[in-house]
Amino acid sequence: MPRRLSILGSTGSIGVNALKVVENLIGEFELVCISGHKNAQLLVEQAQRYRPQVVAVTDLESARYVERKLAGSGIDIVTGLQGLLEVSRRKDIDLLLNALVGSAGMEPTIAAARAGVDIALSNKESLVMAGDIIKKLCTDSGSNIYPVDSEHSAIWQCLAGENKADIDRLILTGSGGPFRTRPVKDFAQITVSDALQHPNWSMGKKITIDSATMMNKGLEVIEAYWLFDVGAEQIEIVIHPQSIIHSMVKFRDGSLKAQLGLPDMKIPIQYALTYPRHLASNWEDIDLITMGTLTFEAPDYHKFPCLRLAFEALKSGGSSPAVLNVANEQAVYRFLGGEIRFTDIPVMIEGALAKHDWIAEPELAHIKYLESWVTTFITDYRSS
Amino acid sequence: MPRRLSILGSTGSIGVNALKVVENLIGEFELVCISGHKNAQLLVEQAQRYRPQVVAVTDLESARYVERKLAGSGIDIVTGLQGLLEVSRRKDIDLLLNALVGSAGMEPTIAAARAGVDIALSNKESLVMAGDIIKKLCTDSGSNIYPVDSEHSAIWQCLAGENKADIDRLILTGSGGPFRTRPVKDFAQITVSDALQHPNWSMGKKITIDSATMMNKGLEVIEAYWLFDVGAEQIEIVIHPQSIIHSMVKFRDGSLKAQLGLPDMKIPIQYALTYPRHLASNWEDIDLITMGTLTFEAPDYHKFPCLRLAFEALKSGGSSPAVLNVANEQAVYRFLGGEIRFTDIPVMIEGALAKHDWIAEPELAHIKYLESWVTTFITDYRSS
Repeated sequence: MPRRLSILGSTGSIGVNALKVVENLIGEFELVCISGHKNAQLLVEQAQRYRPQVVAVTDLESARYVERKLAGSGIDIVTGLQGLLEVSRRKDIDLLLNALVGSAGMEPTIAAARAGVDIALSNKESLVMAGDIIKKLCTDSGSNIYPVDSEHSAIWQCLAGENKADIDRLILTGSGGPFRTRPVKDFAQITVSDALQHPNWSMGKKITIDSATMMNKGLEVIEAYWLFDVGAEQIEIVIHPQSIIHSMVKFRDGSLKAQLGLPDMKIPIQYALTYPRHLASNWEDIDLITMGTLTFEAPDYHKFPCLRLAFEALKSGGSSPAVLNVANEQAVYRFLGGEIRFTDIPVMIEGALAKHDWIAEPELAHIKYLESWVTTFITDYRSS
Repeated sequence: MPRRLSILGSTGSIGVNALKVVENLIGEFELVCISGHKNAQLLVEQAQRYRPQVVAVTDLESARYVERKLAGSGIDIVTGLQGLLEVSRRKDIDLLLNALVGSAGMEPTIAAARAGVDIALSNKESLVMAGDIIKKLCTDSGSNIYPVDSEHSAIWQCLAGENKADIDRLILTGSGGPFRTRPVKDFAQITVSDALQHPNWSMGKKITIDSATMMNKGLEVIEAYWLFDVGAEQIEIVIHPQSIIHSMVKFRDGSLKAQLGLPDMKIPIQYALTYPRHLASNWEDIDLITMGTLTFEAPDYHKFPCLRLAFEALKSGGSSPAVLNVANEQAVYRFLGGEIRFTDIPVMIEGALAKHDWIAEPELAHIKYLESWVTTFITDYRSS
């Protein structure tokens, strides 16, 4: 029996790779829904090629285009956030891949967790912003979360067959991004196009900037905290510029397990979709011998203050990680828009964290209120 | 309830480390038996310190010394191969650690496998010589084999929670030994003391020479074949001079899992004794950052013909691996005795493999006959 699968964010980098995985594993999946936002043309092409039952379009202008193009196709179209949530809480699917970008991914994750649907989670913002809420919903509903991020997939794979009590610590590896070796005194001059050059991974714009500031690694620390239920002090970052070791687990007896592979998101996506199996694929093969050398460095918290801010937000808990995430997202969009400098990003985030009204156990309504407060705060922020 | 444990070969390198593990894990083990061969003084010290129920001594002169020293201690003493086999087939123990050196370890493994006793197997010669016999006995009796060798422990750890059908291949790493970078034209001049300098691991003499010829890696390939039930073509060797990645498994989806650690045998020994748990230990901690760089190379089959011979013996099957092992063992002892050159070792092994009467499914009696035939063959061999 094929697994009934929906993909939120099918036109993004993860979504496109997920469809390649589905196409490669003939007979394993039945595609129930795909979704897109503004890339209406690609969404229509995907609908015509993969024939899902439903297409969800959140951007309303795009929705009109998609409705026109798919008229008479027999494919249902749902629109807006409501349409996305409707699709997310369908109980007749086996797995929801949430590959939405940014905080927009949070509510669909909550809807699926409440409905007891298993979630392949690429949208790390879901757990960063609402980890406590989502984990409680999963416990109540029996919904499982399968990580898609290469780092969390690595840790998850290393933990297969192991006992949580035996974990000493989780070691998240990071490439260090494009500015690992650039002197910090030159950081204020970093341009958008500098920051969009990632050395190893080809990804969307938002996550590429997050790699450059290393906030991406910080968000991953918070995500790992919720996914693997360890203490913040049990999560460590190691810089590994080659991006071959995707992350590691150290056990209490001194044994380390690592997961390795080429920097190809199809591998962790496929694992999340086919867990607990490693089904045969025909992606490019890793060859350790031609690859040469693997190196490791300590992360530089001075050069990358976003890393420090993420650990501080995690330790502070409550509403802080949500504020961190929204502030980062808004600051990144302002940077991408040419409005602020690269070095303003952490300054703005630190400002939002310091100024917001901290709440110990935020509910969804609080988080949504904070989201709007932080958005205004960052929009109004004038860099010095 | 402490696990009832016997250790064969307690005075060797693995045995001594195993006793450190037992001592460190207070309350986890009850030591039933220890055994030694010629190192009678250490065996007596171990008996006095760890108070096992039984001490087995295979060397008869040592036995007299041990009997004298332990008179009135309340510790039973059994002697010779018969004593060792008696201890190995005791059904009142939970785990037998077989840390004997060389082909002498085979019969105790067979005795334990027949009796349904779980075996922590450090003696790789057991499976190399009698893999087929031992695996069949284990299937019948329900006995499990837990690998102790760092490479096989690594693979075993990587396979926790995984499905055998998902294995693409096993990648055994090897340091390349002390002669990895020495030109092959100088190999005939290698002295015993040259060959006893291993770059990373501190081990017994026989296995250190096996590392220098790389026969050790060859024997490990054959051991992996029996332990993990994969095809010979699914086993690969990668040279990794730092000995930090102890081995890897590649799965069908392109994902690789690796186990890493300092070159400290206490980690794999402890895992074999405490499986499936990674109990807390206080061994020296690994630090990837200070460790620096990990490199990988292809093995050199021209420089290290023992590697090629091992793969050929595995593919030939039947009696060939047993002949390979005994011929190697005898040739190594002649090299250690200063009788032959380093480069004579593979020549003699190849000679024994070519000249012996090949048997498809050797029984124990055949193996013992071959052992004696090969010993004579190697003893009588005159190098050119």
